[in-house]
Amino acid sequence: MPPSPESRTLRVGLLQHACPVGEPAQATLRRTAALAADAAARGAELLVTQELFGGPYFCQVEDEAGFNRAEPVPGPTTAFLSGLAREHGVHVSGSLFERRAPGLCHNTSVLIDPTGELVHRYRKMHIPEDPRFYEKFYFTPGDAPVGTPPGRPGEDDRASGFTAWPLPGHPARPTLGPLVCWDQWFPEAARLTALRGAEVLLYPTAIGAWHGEDAGVPATQAQAWHTMQRSHAIANGVFVCACNRIGVENELSFWGGSFIADPAGTVIAQAGPDTEEALVATLDLTHIERQRRGWPFLRDRRVDAYAGLLQRWGTP
Amino acid sequence: MPPSPESRTLRVGLLQHACPVGEPAQATLRRTAALAADAAARGAELLVTQELFGGPYFCQVEDEAGFNRAEPVPGPTTAFLSGLAREHGVHVSGSLFERRAPGLCHNTSVLIDPTGELVHRYRKMHIPEDPRFYEKFYFTPGDAPVGTPPGRPGEDDRASGFTAWPLPGHPARPTLGPLVCWDQWFPEAARLTALRGAEVLLYPTAIGAWHGEDAGVPATQAQAWHTMQRSHAIANGVFVCACNRIGVENELSFWGGSFIADPAGTVIAQAGPDTEEALVATLDLTHIERQRRGWPFLRDRRVDAYAGLLQRWGTP
Repeated sequence: MPPSPESRTLRVGLLQHACPVGEPAQATLRRTAALAADAAARGAELLVTQELFGGPYFCQVEDEAGFNRAEPVPGPTTAFLSGLAREHGVHVSGSLFERRAPGLCHNTSVLIDPTGELVHRYRKMHIPEDPRFYEKFYFTPGDAPVGTPPGRPGEDDRASGFTAWPLPGHPARPTLGPLVCWDQWFPEAARLTALRGAEVLLYPTAIGAWHGEDAGVPATQAQAWHTMQRSHAIANGVFVCACNRIGVENELSFWGGSFIADPAGTVIAQAGPDTEEALVATLDLTHIERQRRGWPFLRDRRVDAYAGLLQRWGTP
Repeated sequence: MPPSPESRTLRVGLLQHACPVGEPAQATLRRTAALAADAAARGAELLVTQELFGGPYFCQVEDEAGFNRAEPVPGPTTAFLSGLAREHGVHVSGSLFERRAPGLCHNTSVLIDPTGELVHRYRKMHIPEDPRFYEKFYFTPGDAPVGTPPGRPGEDDRASGFTAWPLPGHPARPTLGPLVCWDQWFPEAARLTALRGAEVLLYPTAIGAWHGEDAGVPATQAQAWHTMQRSHAIANGVFVCACNRIGVENELSFWGGSFIADPAGTVIAQAGPDTEEALVATLDLTHIERQRRGWPFLRDRRVDAYAGLLQRWGTP
C-alpha cells in the first residue's frame, strides 16, 4: 500500500560551491563536505552535488591529460560520497567523470544510499560541444536503452538510457529523475524520465558565461536556462532541482543560481549567483498528484502522432 | 537560392480582443476587423487571430446547441478572413470551429494568402477537458499523420498531424508552425512542428481564470503558460507568437497578455491583460540561424533513445 498522501515529503539539499583553479583537490572536497554537513544539520534527506563537483571544470580545453581525472565507478569519488552518506545518514546524488574502459568515459551521476551503498547510476545522454565546453572530447554519450518500451522504473538502470531512481528505504518512497546539465535543453529527456516514474528531476550542472561573450548574452542565457528547466516541471508535473557551481575558472564565470521549482513551475528556493551555500527545501510530493489532476497533460499526449520525434528532421 | 539572410524579416500582428457574451456576431467581427486594419496600417504582413475569435468561448458548457456554431472550411469565417487578407494585402491565420461531417468537428486554424485564397489548414491535436473548458465534448482531435517520417514541409498538410506552413509569395519565405492553445503544454507538439521546418510557432489561445479558482492560482497558471511557451522558443530556436483573448465571459476571465518571444526565449512584445490591441512586431528571422549555431540542440538530439516517447507510460 502506498504511504498516505500527507506523509509524502522529501527534504533536499543542493550543494553549490566554487572549485577554484589551483586549489588542492582535498580542499575542494572539504567545501562539498562542509555544505553537506550544513544541509544535513538542516534536515536534508537527499544531498545533490553540482556537476563534476570534485574540481575545476576541465572541459574548457581539449587536453588528453584531462582523462587522468576519470575514475572507475565505484572509485574514489563514490567512496567520498559514501562517506558523506554514512556520516549524515542521508541519500547522496553525485556527479563525476567515469572511466568505463580505456578511451571510453562518461559524465555520470550516481546515487548512494544512507548505508553508503552505490545503488543507481545514470550516464549523461546529451553531450555539448561549445567554445570552452568541449565535452564531446571527453564524454561518450550514455547508451540508448535496449528494447522498447523502457522497462519498469527501478529495474536495472545501470544498463543504459533515461531512468528513474526509487529512493531505497525512504518512507515517502520518492522517485528521482537523474539528468545532467546539457540534458536540460531537451524536453524529450525530461519527459522520458518522468514517464519512468520520476517525481523529482535532478540537474547537476556547470553553466556560466564565457568572458568572450557579447554584453547582455549571459543574462539572456541565464534566463533561458531558468525558463527551460521550469518548463520541464510544468510539462511533466514534477519537481525540478538544478544545482550549479559558482566562481571564476579561467575564461568562464559560473552563475550559480541553483534552484528548486515545484510542479506548477514556481521557484520555491533559489541560491545566489556567487554564494557558497546549501540550498535546502522540503518538497511536498503530494503536489504532483494535485498538479496532474488540475492540468492532466499525461492524459492527452498524442502518442499516435509522435513518431516524427524519432527523426532528426521532418524531411529526409 | 535562398534570399540573403539580411532580408529575412516578417512583421506580425496579433489581434487581441474581447468577445462579449450577448454581443451580435457582426459586432464582434468588427472588433477583429478594426484591429486588423490597425495592424496592417502599422505594416503587419501576417495577422493572427486569437482562438475561436468569432464569438464567446462557448465550451464553458456542454450544450448540443453549441454545434450550431460549427461551419465548413471554406465557409463564413474563412470568407471573412479572406476579405481581411484581400483588403489589406496580408496573410491571415485564423482560428475557427470546423464542421467536417455531422458529429465530427475540429478546432481548426487556417492560413489565407493576400489574394484571399485558403492555402493551409491545421486541426488542433491536443484537446483539453477541464471544468469550464469542455473541449472534448465539441472537438475531435486532429488526425495522426499517415506514415512516418512526416513528409516534406509544405506538402499536403490538409491531411493530418503536425505541420508547417510556408508563407506563399512572401519575399523572406518564412515558415509558420500552426498550433492551438492546449497544444502549447506539449513539448512534443512544438518539436514536431519545428522539425517540419516551422520558424514561427503560432498559438491562438483562449485561456483565463475560472472564477471558482483559489486565490493565487490564476497568477501561477499565467506564469506557467508564459514559461511553457517561451521554453518552446528556446528548445527549438524559433519564434513563438501567442494570441489570447481578454474580457469576462460568464465564469471565466481571460487574461490577455498576448506575446511574442524570440528564439532565445526573450519576450520582444507583450499586450496588456485587459486591453483590446493589435500587438505588432518585426521578427528578424536570421536570429534563428544565429541562435541554433550558438545552442545547437537539434545537433544533439538522441533520436536513438527516444522510442519511449511513443508510449503513454514507462511501464506496461
